Amino acid sequence: MVVENVAVNPDLVRERQKCTFNTLELTHLLDGGEAKTLERKEREDYFLSDPAFKDEVPMEYLSHKEQYEHSVRKACHMFKKLQEMPHGSMDNFRDPPVDSMGKRVKQLLGGMLGSAIIKDGNPLALHYVMFLPTLAGQGTVEQQAFWISRAWNLEIIGTYAQTELGHGTFIRGLETTATYDPATQEFVLNSPTLTSYKWWPGGLGHTANYAVVVAQLYTQGKCHGIHPFIVQLRDEETHMPLPGIIIGEIGAKLGMNTTNNGYLGFKQVRIPLENMLMKNNKVLEDGTYVKSPSDKLTYGTMMFVRVVICQDMSSYLSKAVTIATRYSAVRHQSEMKPGAPEPQVLDYRTQQYKLLPSIASVFAMKFSAQWIWEMYNVVNSELDQGDLERLPELHAASCCLKALCTSDAASAVETVRLACGGHGYMKSSNLPSTYGLVTAACTYEGENTVLLLQTARYLMKTWQQARSGQTLTPSVAYLNLYSDWRQPRAIWENSMDCVVKAFYQVAAGKVKSAAEHMERRAKGGMSSEDAWNESSIELVAASTAHCRAFMVEKFVETVSKSSVSRPLQTVLTQLAELYALYWLLINKGDFLMFSNLSPADVDGLQLWLEQLLAKLRPNAVGIVDSFDIHDEILGSPLGAWDGRVYERMFEESQKSPLNSEPVNKSFHEYLKPFLRSNL
Amino acid sequence: MVVENVAVNPDLVRERQKCTFNTLELTHLLDGGEAKTLERKEREDYFLSDPAFKDEVPMEYLSHKEQYEHSVRKACHMFKKLQEMPHGSMDNFRDPPVDSMGKRVKQLLGGMLGSAIIKDGNPLALHYVMFLPTLAGQGTVEQQAFWISRAWNLEIIGTYAQTELGHGTFIRGLETTATYDPATQEFVLNSPTLTSYKWWPGGLGHTANYAVVVAQLYTQGKCHGIHPFIVQLRDEETHMPLPGIIIGEIGAKLGMNTTNNGYLGFKQVRIPLENMLMKNNKVLEDGTYVKSPSDKLTYGTMMFVRVVICQDMSSYLSKAVTIATRYSAVRHQSEMKPGAPEPQVLDYRTQQYKLLPSIASVFAMKFSAQWIWEMYNVVNSELDQGDLERLPELHAASCCLKALCTSDAASAVETVRLACGGHGYMKSSNLPSTYGLVTAACTYEGENTVLLLQTARYLMKTWQQARSGQTLTPSVAYLNLYSDWRQPRAIWENSMDCVVKAFYQVAAGKVKSAAEHMERRAKGGMSSEDAWNESSIELVAASTAHCRAFMVEKFVETVSKSSVSRPLQTVLTQLAELYALYWLLINKGDFLMFSNLSPADVDGLQLWLEQLLAKLRPNAVGIVDSFDIHDEILGSPLGAWDGRVYERMFEESQKSPLNSEPVNKSFHEYLKPFLRSNL
Repeated sequence: MVVENVAVNPDLVRERQKCTFNTLELTHLLDGGEAKTLERKEREDYFLSDPAFKDEVPMEYLSHKEQYEHSVRKACHMFKKLQEMPHGSMDNFRDPPVDSMGKRVKQLLGGMLGSAIIKDGNPLALHYVMFLPTLAGQGTVEQQAFWISRAWNLEIIGTYAQTELGHGTFIRGLETTATYDPATQEFVLNSPTLTSYKWWPGGLGHTANYAVVVAQLYTQGKCHGIHPFIVQLRDEETHMPLPGIIIGEIGAKLGMNTTNNGYLGFKQVRIPLENMLMKNNKVLEDGTYVKSPSDKLTYGTMMFVRVVICQDMSSYLSKAVTIATRYSAVRHQSEMKPGAPEPQVLDYRTQQYKLLPSIASVFAMKFSAQWIWEMYNVVNSELDQGDLERLPELHAASCCLKALCTSDAASAVETVRLACGGHGYMKSSNLPSTYGLVTAACTYEGENTVLLLQTARYLMKTWQQARSGQTLTPSVAYLNLYSDWRQPRAIWENSMDCVVKAFYQVAAGKVKSAAEHMERRAKGGMSSEDAWNESSIELVAASTAHCRAFMVEKFVETVSKSSVSRPLQTVLTQLAELYALYWLLINKGDFLMFSNLSPADVDGLQLWLEQLLAKLRPNAVGIVDSFDIHDEILGSPLGAWDGRVYERMFEESQKSPLNSEPVNKSFHEYLKPFLRSNL
Repeated sequence: MVVENVAVNPDLVRERQKCTFNTLELTHLLDGGEAKTLERKEREDYFLSDPAFKDEVPMEYLSHKEQYEHSVRKACHMFKKLQEMPHGSMDNFRDPPVDSMGKRVKQLLGGMLGSAIIKDGNPLALHYVMFLPTLAGQGTVEQQAFWISRAWNLEIIGTYAQTELGHGTFIRGLETTATYDPATQEFVLNSPTLTSYKWWPGGLGHTANYAVVVAQLYTQGKCHGIHPFIVQLRDEETHMPLPGIIIGEIGAKLGMNTTNNGYLGFKQVRIPLENMLMKNNKVLEDGTYVKSPSDKLTYGTMMFVRVVICQDMSSYLSKAVTIATRYSAVRHQSEMKPGAPEPQVLDYRTQQYKLLPSIASVFAMKFSAQWIWEMYNVVNSELDQGDLERLPELHAASCCLKALCTSDAASAVETVRLACGGHGYMKSSNLPSTYGLVTAACTYEGENTVLLLQTARYLMKTWQQARSGQTLTPSVAYLNLYSDWRQPRAIWENSMDCVVKAFYQVAAGKVKSAAEHMERRAKGGMSSEDAWNESSIELVAASTAHCRAFMVEKFVETVSKSSVSRPLQTVLTQLAELYALYWLLINKGDFLMFSNLSPADVDGLQLWLEQLLAKLRPNAVGIVDSFDIHDEILGSPLGAWDGRVYERMFEESQKSPLNSEPVNKSFHEYLKPFLRSNL
């Protein structure tokens, strides 16, 4: 981190002097090496120094419509700039395969840079993130040649329309129909009900002119389930909606207000046969449906998206904790000792308890996402050899990890926002809109409870295998080990070995207990579906415990295996321990029930946790400094590098258009007559 | 609830037919009798039928400035209408004592009606809620006569300016100074630093022309601490800020964007001696400071405000659960059994686990607030007789109750919002703005962690008394009873007696354990202040357990003592049990450590909880129907009485100004050139 040439708040200067490790070493570790840090910073400077991205008036003061218009402007400029970016070949962009451009798009949209430029959602994002990958993944070679080239060349702008007003997670329930008419060799798209209207796709409202539409395929009088179709929505010249296309935006939301989420209804819209994406299943000219032998090919995209979500959660949380930690170092409050000056709020143990476990979470999410990505690559190469064995394990791990990363991030962002007191409630703090982005992820790409139940389905199956003595794949092997947890308990010891083992004992215990409850219900005469539903609270808890166990383990393992300097190793170890103890103590009931922990041991763990907070306290600012987040990406007077919190807050308030005139017209129009009327 | 003359969603019709109790009986119980229900409904009709309050375009689509202007218009109309309201005497309004008008203002602003008319904060609220009560509470009889009359007659509009940019909860740290100048018999108000600027007062930005300003009083060269002063901010005719007054709004926030929160700086502003509110302390003409013998008089307002906050939390949560429960009855999703139609999401046990404990919380908060209000009235009459004994107890109970009600409500609102999936993320669902109102209360009127530590301070003191054998006041008498919890445990039984007792055992256990940790630290050589800080995580946990115990007890007690019909009694009992078991199982570690609960008992409690969910399921819609919330107050397509969820959502989306034209200008300005540039 380069110290800028401005006065830095003396509290922050002191905090930085106290730091016991080299923050640059941690920055490089998190970026994946010095070269990547430099590359990132170059990219950030390239975009963030551009005055075209600066808002004269912050977006939150504009109307919803103006916000959208500005975002379209910025999004166009952003992608134009991306093409023109040095150190990259333009040819790659125009010519698929598009890996290099794809990588750049990902860095821009998936990372924090995108949310610095367009805070509340990019209306062109789905063109890159969903439309193009779907064309690539679901199109035949000919379709790819034609459509990907049109899309990459930005002759058209697409989105991906799946979710409907009445149908989300359960995609088999989608109602939109595409009925094949062999007479004209066309599909007829139709929205039979209001609930069948597409609802939510980003960019659909007023931005895209094409979409991949997921619809129930009917041909020769039979429904063959959902399939993807390319549909033109608007005239390419005038942008007017085409006949039969009912389209618009769905309205204002908690956050992401400039993504231009839209609705879409079809009144007998005809598209040519070749607009069905036919890489897998096909419809022949005469209407014959030809099913593909394998359907596994879309698996990779889903995995990739979940890993990206976990990485994003880690990034957004790193932003939130940077803001809250620096603010807590600058803010002074109350009297700890009579007559003494007001201490930094960071000195309060309760404040540390809000900030430091949230900081630890940033690492836990990052390391778990790394682990699952490596696992994906292994499984993928096994897949290529026809080995499908670890696919369910991978699927199960990715489901619960997405659920925990998003819900942990959402609650941690709120915890640290509230830790900033009233000032965290200011939009300018950037914490509210960070929450808006993070909490949305609890719902999209698989609602969290549904995902946890998918993991539970796998765990229940695995549990049966464990009970019948089968050897299990690595991430669930603990079910073999700890299926006998009711045996006489070992003595608890305050070591990380014991702690990690205890997390797995708890997971095994909760898996077993959920399984037993299901069985008991089934034996009592309940159908297996009812038994599943009645036990689902416990099934969710079992999945959560399973996921927490591997998150703790991967954190501890990654830290112990990393080859960093000793001072940094010490800090990372403290963070891993804090993460583990925090979650252990939150769920201590489970540990008392299923691990070696006894009530007499709890005091010692509480003390250990408090000592970790005390040890990490002097490095709190150093750790968040290592995240090395550009002030423009933080976008918060509370969190800027220089700690000029109050000056920046005041400057920010001056940007409110209400403050541009001393007397608002509402005084003359409403207030004065109101007052007069009472005289 | 009158069934309106529209088609009601058949799922809701069925739900209402299934209901086992008389919803009207519960409505009357919650309102405090049939007469009060009628009165409330009359008031609602009076206001909500007025077309002047209807928004052509929902506020969320307007700019920040336009939103403010509309709110001023509505606020003026609202209070004008209040004066003109039938069944109330205008004289009461013009002539203090103002009880009748005050009550009406409270019903309008404190209840849900106010937030239905102005969703995101009333810019005139503080005039009624803080300015007037402060004049009444802190002014001399002469000051009251002059200022209250001006304020009631709406010759002036005031606010209350205490919090500063750098100073919130710790009010002794305020920096604004009021220095007495005997030569002119004036106070000179000054803001010595940027951090001393007033920051946050509602209505301060552009609405009020007067304020009660809290400042450090200096006279005869000595500081006498903070005192209240009446300061004119703006010219009464032109509304221009007076010389030396630096004023404006603080900017956009997570919510409450139309309260017009402001900042205020003073550059040597002179006000006459008589503008200091002198009911308690005085400054004489020569500058002599005369301290009042008693300072207890402001106590009532603070108590009152906390009780109102708890009631508000209960109301806002009742709104959120009504929306989410009705939506969950209308929404169908996934396949529970192969081939069966998609079930109502309300049939999923996991969904019930999100909704029903939140519904139970509505009652728990309401009953606890009632209890503490009754306690306040008792203590108050004791106070009149000079008996101050129960004041600390009352203070302690009100601190932790405010903290738990606000944080429980915030997390419950988010839980049920997320339970509505993507549609809960829509602003039109009204759940995001409800969260905005509720989460704000976690910070204002005493930040929650600070409040819990105040309760802890009392509990620690009480614990010492218990240990020395003193008899304790009722709400902490359990510390006498359970101080010996390490004695051989009784057998657990699944009865509410045992459960309620266990909550107190846990509270006692956590109080004791926090006290012991403090002592251990003090004995280890730490100062008592450091020991306090180092133990503060446990102190917060002890306060929380204390509060939860009395919330559970008051719920159980209120239900068992109420004289309702048996069918209603059954439902209320189930809700009380659910509330208790929900929190018991969340914190089961504490119960395993400190109560008679053993690990073998936990399964039975889990089963009990699941059975309660199953029993309450058929009455879920009936219970929220009983809250009897007007559709205009719910303000949500997801939650309207008729269950026309999708039709209403679609209608709502049509109000977005972006949808008023098929092609937005950004296509021609930005998108088309961007596309062209790539051809």
